[in-house]
Amino acid sequence: MNRDEIKSLSINYNLQSWSKQKGLNPIPVEKGEGIYFWDFDRKRYSDMSSQLVNLNAGHGNRKIIEAIKEQAEKYCYISPSYASEPRARLAKMIIDLMPGNMGKVFFTNGGADANENAVKMARMFTGRNKIFSRYRSYHGSTYGAGNLTGEPRRYPLEPGIPGFVKFFDPYIYREKIPFASEREAGEYYVAKLREQVIYEGADNVAAIVLETITGSNGVIIPPEGYLKGVRQICDDFGIMLICDEVMAGFGRTGKMFGFENWDIAPDMVTFAKGVTCGYVQLGGVAVSKEIAEFFDDNVLKCGLTYSGHPLACAAGIACLEFYRENNILDNVNSSGKVLGELLEELKEKHPSVGDVRYIGLFSAVELVKDKSSREPLVPYGSDPKGIMKSLIGKLAAEGFMTYSHENMILIAPPLIITPEQLKEEIAKLDGILTVFESEMPI
Amino acid sequence: MNRDEIKSLSINYNLQSWSKQKGLNPIPVEKGEGIYFWDFDRKRYSDMSSQLVNLNAGHGNRKIIEAIKEQAEKYCYISPSYASEPRARLAKMIIDLMPGNMGKVFFTNGGADANENAVKMARMFTGRNKIFSRYRSYHGSTYGAGNLTGEPRRYPLEPGIPGFVKFFDPYIYREKIPFASEREAGEYYVAKLREQVIYEGADNVAAIVLETITGSNGVIIPPEGYLKGVRQICDDFGIMLICDEVMAGFGRTGKMFGFENWDIAPDMVTFAKGVTCGYVQLGGVAVSKEIAEFFDDNVLKCGLTYSGHPLACAAGIACLEFYRENNILDNVNSSGKVLGELLEELKEKHPSVGDVRYIGLFSAVELVKDKSSREPLVPYGSDPKGIMKSLIGKLAAEGFMTYSHENMILIAPPLIITPEQLKEEIAKLDGILTVFESEMPI
Ligand SMILES: Cc1ncc(COP(=O)(O)O)c(C=O)c1O
Ligand SMILES: Cc1ncc(COP(=O)(O)O)c(C=O)c1O
Repeated sequence: MNRDEIKSLSINYNLQSWSKQKGLNPIPVEKGEGIYFWDFDRKRYSDMSSQLVNLNAGHGNRKIIEAIKEQAEKYCYISPSYASEPRARLAKMIIDLMPGNMGKVFFTNGGADANENAVKMARMFTGRNKIFSRYRSYHGSTYGAGNLTGEPRRYPLEPGIPGFVKFFDPYIYREKIPFASEREAGEYYVAKLREQVIYEGADNVAAIVLETITGSNGVIIPPEGYLKGVRQICDDFGIMLICDEVMAGFGRTGKMFGFENWDIAPDMVTFAKGVTCGYVQLGGVAVSKEIAEFFDDNVLKCGLTYSGHPLACAAGIACLEFYRENNILDNVNSSGKVLGELLEELKEKHPSVGDVRYIGLFSAVELVKDKSSREPLVPYGSDPKGIMKSLIGKLAAEGFMTYSHENMILIAPPLIITPEQLKEEIAKLDGILTVFESEMPI
Repeated sequence: MNRDEIKSLSINYNLQSWSKQKGLNPIPVEKGEGIYFWDFDRKRYSDMSSQLVNLNAGHGNRKIIEAIKEQAEKYCYISPSYASEPRARLAKMIIDLMPGNMGKVFFTNGGADANENAVKMARMFTGRNKIFSRYRSYHGSTYGAGNLTGEPRRYPLEPGIPGFVKFFDPYIYREKIPFASEREAGEYYVAKLREQVIYEGADNVAAIVLETITGSNGVIIPPEGYLKGVRQICDDFGIMLICDEVMAGFGRTGKMFGFENWDIAPDMVTFAKGVTCGYVQLGGVAVSKEIAEFFDDNVLKCGLTYSGHPLACAAGIACLEFYRENNILDNVNSSGKVLGELLEELKEKHPSVGDVRYIGLFSAVELVKDKSSREPLVPYGSDPKGIMKSLIGKLAAEGFMTYSHENMILIAPPLIITPEQLKEEIAKLDGILTVFESEMPI
């Protein structure tokens, strides 16, 4: 099929996520390799968001492709009630990457159902009902995951499920309190959370769920002491700490899992995206040994047809081996350092860049009307003049592909990106911002 | 890895669905072909449930495997916002198989998220809140799908989402009313449903969701007039009719979709399983043209990272082509006829066989203590003496693999099964029942 046929079939027959369907003009993709992909006119695009922050190993990874082909010749699917080599091996590999308290894995198809099952297990294990999660968060769009989600993508799921409680995230850049230090901020947010847990009745709280590092809602990095403090609240009250590592996991932050940056051990970890890079869909929940043992004698009331899909697990094994064989964390840390420097330069130079936040190859550029007032470039929840859309479009015209959220541009390229490639790409953003500021309609 | 290594890794690292983990002894599977699969001791098993009623094309289907390998070489994944050939083509193929009122497809990873999204869309489209579904049903185990589910697998999700209402299914075999005809039964259940819709406030009802033919809960086949009557209720009150064809769809019943057996057109159809046979995970919602058009100007507030996964869609295209090229419906109808005859013979012969229900290659054998009182072989929701478990185990020992639900044994082999294979397999069930009845502990 040619470009136009694909585009017109796509427009006529596919319903596209989070969009009005009228006026969509999706780019038909022909192929991808490394950090690049191409349309049917041979135009090359740089994937500065790793698609949806899942393509950590980049496009066209040979090792993962070969593993898929090899497993397809053995068998693609066998039901979860049988023992399957890729399913069993991948579970062990994941547990081996985790802190010593972790025990077993329940596999799902993606991030939303990973979180769905984590919530169910926390409720079964604790016998409690309430689930805490944060406002600036995205945990998926099914009813359970969507009720965890704090941002507007939750609204269509309301009236919500009883027992889901929201708290605020440590978003220091937009906090009115003049913290003397990061540690002080961390202490403040932990104390606030503790107060809220107590007011909700600590004995009713089954779990606190958080993106270890808030992803789509703007790469909000927890201040020093924050995660340790949340862990302490959980310990004090017998609450499960569930880290959603769907975006932050598998190398994105320079550690295998985001929580390792602050040296804590969760009770459950939900993952997806980077575990297979989405070559085949896979997600899951890793649970502590204690939780795993609970289900020795209590029925695990969770299940889906494709739990531990063998083809997906084979892709996952290859993917994790690729990370290891290529010392991917080293590259994330060295390229990540360059990314941080480049972003700091942008912030220095551009009046519209209010804040840059980065860890590993996970970053966001927050745009403002005014650097000192910090007024966001577009108001919360709307972009009436289409300013962000136009910026993303201008970047795309130069082959810099990513997406925005509110007044923020996400930058999270494949973990194989080189410092040279980063410089080349960030220079495009620099140029676009310069032009934009000179014409700024604000 | 050898048999024992796989088994021990599996037991130590995988959490298994719907089970206590202690005492699990999963069979490690080495390979599959056609209706058979093998363990590592070369023991052959006949797949009389198509795994979880998803492997319609059987094991090791070359066409699907080749399609996966081919697409893997092009690209495995590209985000849903791009136009992708397999995603676009498969959507058109699915719409072309459906009634003329259907318009577009939103793809998911499996059956649960297909139903999640259908419910969301029905609420958005109608602006109403209440969702009707049936007691004897399974629609998935995420919070939204699990709240649709009527059977006990719903309980861990309670307290539930506001607005989910349950009604009873047309389970004539266990109905006290002495219906003079199937049509009379159909009319009765439709009238009851209409009454309930009115009492819930018809203007509040967004959708009626039903498995066109109830699957895991015992292959309950709607009586004549039933689905037409439900369609009429929906038309009268502006309610969306959502047919869950996750199990019944893609040839299982002898038609491409279950609802075609009664000549009705739903507003939405959810599907999974047979669309790819699970070679790669895929599900989705097909919506009417009217609903599709609504989302031209209204944001579709649905999304998941792996919506319309290209590798999965490529598998789906190959799968649908396989059905067509092999006239799969002809085989379902001819083998299905033999299956029906064999089941009627079982019922005739065995005092423990209370009812047999079948359509195409979708069937259940309902076991009773006493044919005239119809008392179920095991009480609802429990099997204290492990009778059903022991029967399933005895069948497995003879290589007849399937699963049970309450007092029912499900029989739903791959759609490629021959009459000879069916005779061979049902003879095993016949033998086991004969022995069982002679020793019957009841
Ligand atoms: C942190 C986080 N959790 C969960 C999800 C949901 O994953 P999925 O889209 O696979 O359902 C996402 C998706 O972006 C995510 O970023
Ligand atoms: C009728 C029906 N709907 C939905 C589902 C859920 O599908 P999945 O297991 O892919 O989530 C099933 C699974 O058996 C089903 O039989």
